Amino acid sequence: MSKPLNAIKPKVRALRAYSLRPDRARVKLNQNENPWDAPPEIRSETLRRLNGRPWSRYPDFHARALHERLAKFAGWKAEGIIAGNGSNELIQALLMVTVGSGTQVLISEPTFALYRQITTVLGGEVISVPLNSELIYDGKALRRAIETALPKVTIICSPNNPTGCVIDRRDLESLLETTRGLIVIDEAYHEFSGQTVVPILQQHPNLIVLRTFSKAMAMAGLRVGYLLAAPELAQEIAKAVLPYNLNVISQTAAQVAIEMYESKLQPLVNLICAERDRVYERLKEIKGLEPVSSRGNFMLVRSAISPRLVFDELLRRDILIRDVSAYPMLGDYFRISVGAPEENNQLLSSLREILGGREQ
Amino acid sequence: MSKPLNAIKPKVRALRAYSLRPDRARVKLNQNENPWDAPPEIRSETLRRLNGRPWSRYPDFHARALHERLAKFAGWKAEGIIAGNGSNELIQALLMVTVGSGTQVLISEPTFALYRQITTVLGGEVISVPLNSELIYDGKALRRAIETALPKVTIICSPNNPTGCVIDRRDLESLLETTRGLIVIDEAYHEFSGQTVVPILQQHPNLIVLRTFSKAMAMAGLRVGYLLAAPELAQEIAKAVLPYNLNVISQTAAQVAIEMYESKLQPLVNLICAERDRVYERLKEIKGLEPVSSRGNFMLVRSAISPRLVFDELLRRDILIRDVSAYPMLGDYFRISVGAPEENNQLLSSLREILGGREQ
Repeated sequence: MSKPLNAIKPKVRALRAYSLRPDRARVKLNQNENPWDAPPEIRSETLRRLNGRPWSRYPDFHARALHERLAKFAGWKAEGIIAGNGSNELIQALLMVTVGSGTQVLISEPTFALYRQITTVLGGEVISVPLNSELIYDGKALRRAIETALPKVTIICSPNNPTGCVIDRRDLESLLETTRGLIVIDEAYHEFSGQTVVPILQQHPNLIVLRTFSKAMAMAGLRVGYLLAAPELAQEIAKAVLPYNLNVISQTAAQVAIEMYESKLQPLVNLICAERDRVYERLKEIKGLEPVSSRGNFMLVRSAISPRLVFDELLRRDILIRDVSAYPMLGDYFRISVGAPEENNQLLSSLREILGGREQ
Repeated sequence: MSKPLNAIKPKVRALRAYSLRPDRARVKLNQNENPWDAPPEIRSETLRRLNGRPWSRYPDFHARALHERLAKFAGWKAEGIIAGNGSNELIQALLMVTVGSGTQVLISEPTFALYRQITTVLGGEVISVPLNSELIYDGKALRRAIETALPKVTIICSPNNPTGCVIDRRDLESLLETTRGLIVIDEAYHEFSGQTVVPILQQHPNLIVLRTFSKAMAMAGLRVGYLLAAPELAQEIAKAVLPYNLNVISQTAAQVAIEMYESKLQPLVNLICAERDRVYERLKEIKGLEPVSSRGNFMLVRSAISPRLVFDELLRRDILIRDVSAYPMLGDYFRISVGAPEENNQLLSSLREILGGREQ
């Protein structure tokens, strides 16, 4: 017998595992979560509905009932919706049915790390167009890359994690009309931007939209995401979605969250957006820090002192943020999630201390 | 813009979606589930532990605490364990890191349909060795296939779904020593066979074992599975496992189920095995039916009348079984899961009626 690791594809072996340091702190501003828990009415109604439901029985093969609720909620056709174990599972399924050895996938970095990771595992080639110097999508450069490289798939996170920029609607329409491939818009943070491309899905059968319950919907712990696309495209992507992929509890919780979104979750989203704007203004006043305007529930901050040092000093004060200085272009930046008002106040006063900017 | 479906790999487009008719019946013997729900002590202790845990926060990046419990439970190293959203997710991750265009994957059919499905989506080539005429693994034929085709991965379901046969231990060791690739033993049903290959993991660094919480553990609705392998191999497979893949509720439930396995679940497994043997004997007495001896919580039954007709007649009587007649070699067979005693009695009397065998 030869070495078992020889069975692993060389590109996978060369890949560094995507990981996250398991630091813990009382004020957790590192994963762009909703700082408030799922409202108690959503939790209790979910458990009430599950009360008689045996755990021993499989969920539906595909989450049909949830697909129908999502269709009404998002304004799209149920046959063009796939719910998944987080939107990660759906980006993976999409790449599995499109990417083979050497397939070109276009992304614009810095962005969410998983697009590159999954493409590489599948043997595809990542083409990366950098954001412009203001950390915003460069529509012209993206269009040129599509014209020259003819990527099969283009993935754009909008609002973009970790920069918070959104793709301009006209730029997107131009890309959709130029490409011979598919364009994925990852709308994980769309609720905080008040902007979505779902209304143009009907005119663009090569457009795919991803959504998640992990941010505005306050359910990161339950792992629910969904994909919207033309039904005939969704049907092909579904071939790579594992049967029974979504457990019964998360399916039920997602349905309840949709029903209660307007009354229970939308107010939290509004509060997060107001806090985001307040934190941005306060950060501008701290000497040595330059916040980047964001349409998500997070923002980048350019720092005159080492982001790693800021990270460590905040952790000593029981506040956890994300050090993104290893991302391309972001050597001088850290990322904060927008927390609850009291958490944001603690962050701001700690940063004032660390930057020595109390005189301002 | 060209046609969006052109972005889908041709082999995927040619693939029929793996699916299951959404029939419903009061007596559900079609998915090899545990006929009893997760015991109330497991459900209530799970909910108790989750009481203060916010849904809005991500689970651990990898389910470390669960990995450690699983290690003690299964008798293997925590660094060599990966928990997943059902074992399906783990077979997919394993195939993602090993299979590219043209990679050969050996299976022995009829078997669980997903091995072929995922291999095909990833562009691999399935080599299939048929079971022998008694529907049992053909050790010699498997060995010859390994010697001639040099598959990178060989997947053997043991006990095999849907036939119930197990791979002979000496045959397996011979395959492990012959192959230059990996061998996966899918032990989804091992608790009903009293047999596992985990004790030989240490000597065989090319062996991978899959397990599930969907059968004996009575948690199909919660989607938990795990993989056991040499730590350096597990580390490579983990690169294709999505971060935060296992929601907090299922993680907690799995931990509680392990703690209560001996007192609460093992007795159910014993009862299912006793029922399996009883149902087998009773089926032999029905003229026109020939049950196939099984080491799982299910069995095949050869039928003198059309399996589809048996399926339909049982459904009319509110009993759901699996029509497997489209599987290779199984044109004359249907599959039943072993239910609770009263369910099995209903099945048996209905089959006596349908086969007209009441005279026996």
